[in-house]
Amino acid sequence: MAHVTGEQLKSFAVKVFESLGIPATDAETTAEILVQADLRGIDSHGVARLPIYVKRLKLGLINKRPDIKVVRDRPGAAVVDGDNGLGQVVGHRAMTLCLEKARQHGVAVVGVKNSNHFGIGAYYAMMALKEDMIGMVGTNTSPLMAPFGGKQPLLGTNPLAIAIPAGSQRPVVLDMATSLVPRGKIEIAARKGEKIPVGWAIDKDGRPTQEPEEALKGTLLPMGGPKGYGLALVLDILCGVLSGAAFGAHTGSLFGDLDRPQNIGHFMLALDVNSFRPLSEFKNTMDSLILSIKNSEPAEGFKELFLPGEIEYTKTEERAQKGIDLNPVVAQNLLNLARDLGLVGGEATVDTLFA
Amino acid sequence: MAHVTGEQLKSFAVKVFESLGIPATDAETTAEILVQADLRGIDSHGVARLPIYVKRLKLGLINKRPDIKVVRDRPGAAVVDGDNGLGQVVGHRAMTLCLEKARQHGVAVVGVKNSNHFGIGAYYAMMALKEDMIGMVGTNTSPLMAPFGGKQPLLGTNPLAIAIPAGSQRPVVLDMATSLVPRGKIEIAARKGEKIPVGWAIDKDGRPTQEPEEALKGTLLPMGGPKGYGLALVLDILCGVLSGAAFGAHTGSLFGDLDRPQNIGHFMLALDVNSFRPLSEFKNTMDSLILSIKNSEPAEGFKELFLPGEIEYTKTEERAQKGIDLNPVVAQNLLNLARDLGLVGGEATVDTLFA
Repeated sequence: MAHVTGEQLKSFAVKVFESLGIPATDAETTAEILVQADLRGIDSHGVARLPIYVKRLKLGLINKRPDIKVVRDRPGAAVVDGDNGLGQVVGHRAMTLCLEKARQHGVAVVGVKNSNHFGIGAYYAMMALKEDMIGMVGTNTSPLMAPFGGKQPLLGTNPLAIAIPAGSQRPVVLDMATSLVPRGKIEIAARKGEKIPVGWAIDKDGRPTQEPEEALKGTLLPMGGPKGYGLALVLDILCGVLSGAAFGAHTGSLFGDLDRPQNIGHFMLALDVNSFRPLSEFKNTMDSLILSIKNSEPAEGFKELFLPGEIEYTKTEERAQKGIDLNPVVAQNLLNLARDLGLVGGEATVDTLFA
Repeated sequence: MAHVTGEQLKSFAVKVFESLGIPATDAETTAEILVQADLRGIDSHGVARLPIYVKRLKLGLINKRPDIKVVRDRPGAAVVDGDNGLGQVVGHRAMTLCLEKARQHGVAVVGVKNSNHFGIGAYYAMMALKEDMIGMVGTNTSPLMAPFGGKQPLLGTNPLAIAIPAGSQRPVVLDMATSLVPRGKIEIAARKGEKIPVGWAIDKDGRPTQEPEEALKGTLLPMGGPKGYGLALVLDILCGVLSGAAFGAHTGSLFGDLDRPQNIGHFMLALDVNSFRPLSEFKNTMDSLILSIKNSEPAEGFKELFLPGEIEYTKTEERAQKGIDLNPVVAQNLLNLARDLGLVGGEATVDTLFA
């Protein structure tokens, strides 16, 4: 098993992107956002995705040197055209603009079109924390989920991330998809030969199924039935329809569509706390709310209550201190990638790759 | 059974409020919002609530002539102090301000403190539709729901309403609480002597229960476990903490706390569509998305797919045309209320009450 530090992973990812002709600052930004996912314990969205990003870049499906432009501009609102750049580069630029506008006007919303898969939404929402702002970031994704009552995957799992500063307590960071479970959870059940609970997915004929193999041929279901469906639809509208990006069944799949750009859309909102309430008052009140939950008695079967984002903060501290144990399959994939790109010779191993 | 028109119900409600000394325009606004709930089929939030509003007004727990003030003001952000006025009066004023600001700056957010229960959130969100804007409105509520993993009701069911204009299709109007089910659904099961599904609620000791009587002594559970909990918490922060209203367990109950004001907080967001994308393009795309869902094949057990708000639009058209059959208990309560207020004599009946 390869044991690496976040810094090692990041400099590896930077090298990968630079070797493909991505400008240094863009390589740095993308690597940083991927590695933050690994540090937070969201391994599915971290460096494990380097191979697919590289594949899309090599196929010319992602623009290496995008001309990212603000195509509509109002005091509190803007639309950014990502020119099909890496989602991380586009997303970072758009959220930076959103924070600038919110500082001036109290609140801002930036819509983004012509973007790509941008990794974890929490990263962009958390950019607001350093500015003592509340950040809210959504993205649409490729269609994987049926509307409530339907059987065709017309909607993405369209995640929403919200970051809210606190005082002495850690910020609240919610990052959730609108499906009941991610597709990856069904893939794991399939590998283990386990059944899945009713409500996670339906088969290709729209029938409830407990067989993971059938579920993978069918579609995911929204959390809370019509509620999750409604949220997924609203996010698709805010990310896709409002900005002019792809929407619904038109959105390109990161893995599945290797013949066209994704044209993903994002939605970014920033609220300057101090425009609403003196910052210290807000932070003290946040602490009080957080502690009221943290100190309350757990229900049967629970040992402790967690705030949204708390588990990820703990994981980040742990991995920043102790490093990350890379999954052996991921490590091997990264080794193969480095060889393909000529970054290491044939003698390299997963143990020497990050040294 | 009393059969009434929306207009009859509204003029009855106006008379009730005016008889208590509510200014005419405020009585009109509040009556309109209550009756819109009845027309939409959300009977729980319509004129059935007149008696509790009257009770709170008579007890001096709601300010009849509030001095509603903008206490913080930035180009795209404001905080409104509702001075403990009727939630409908305060909410209507705040959303009007939010729409004005969004027209000037593209986007606006208004936080509201010192308000009261404001009826259906959809009403305020839908105010944006006439302006070709997207409206998003949240409110916190009295604590009825446990955080995920907890057993104490530290959070409200904190609903969120979002209204989005379309072209030839009806607007999308999502209005949902963050609990899996409303408390009323458990009350109905209790009356019918039926069991409730696991996941709706826990008993007072934090144990899952299928007994509605035990659930009513316990607390509601969030939809989707940690996801609904996260959304409820975020809404409490946006509505309560950001504006300076009550939050968490401190929020006053409409029915339960007859010794203090509720100090409810609201959150209102308006996005001017035209600031992001030419309106006609947006509306055409909305129609296309809506029709892709409406025309898709239903899953097993479903006859038709519905867009968020579609059922309520159909109900509104039906009730606007055919009138409303008032629940007999509600009609009797309104008759008693009218007698108590001296609006009708002892000879009045539910059949003559609205004539």
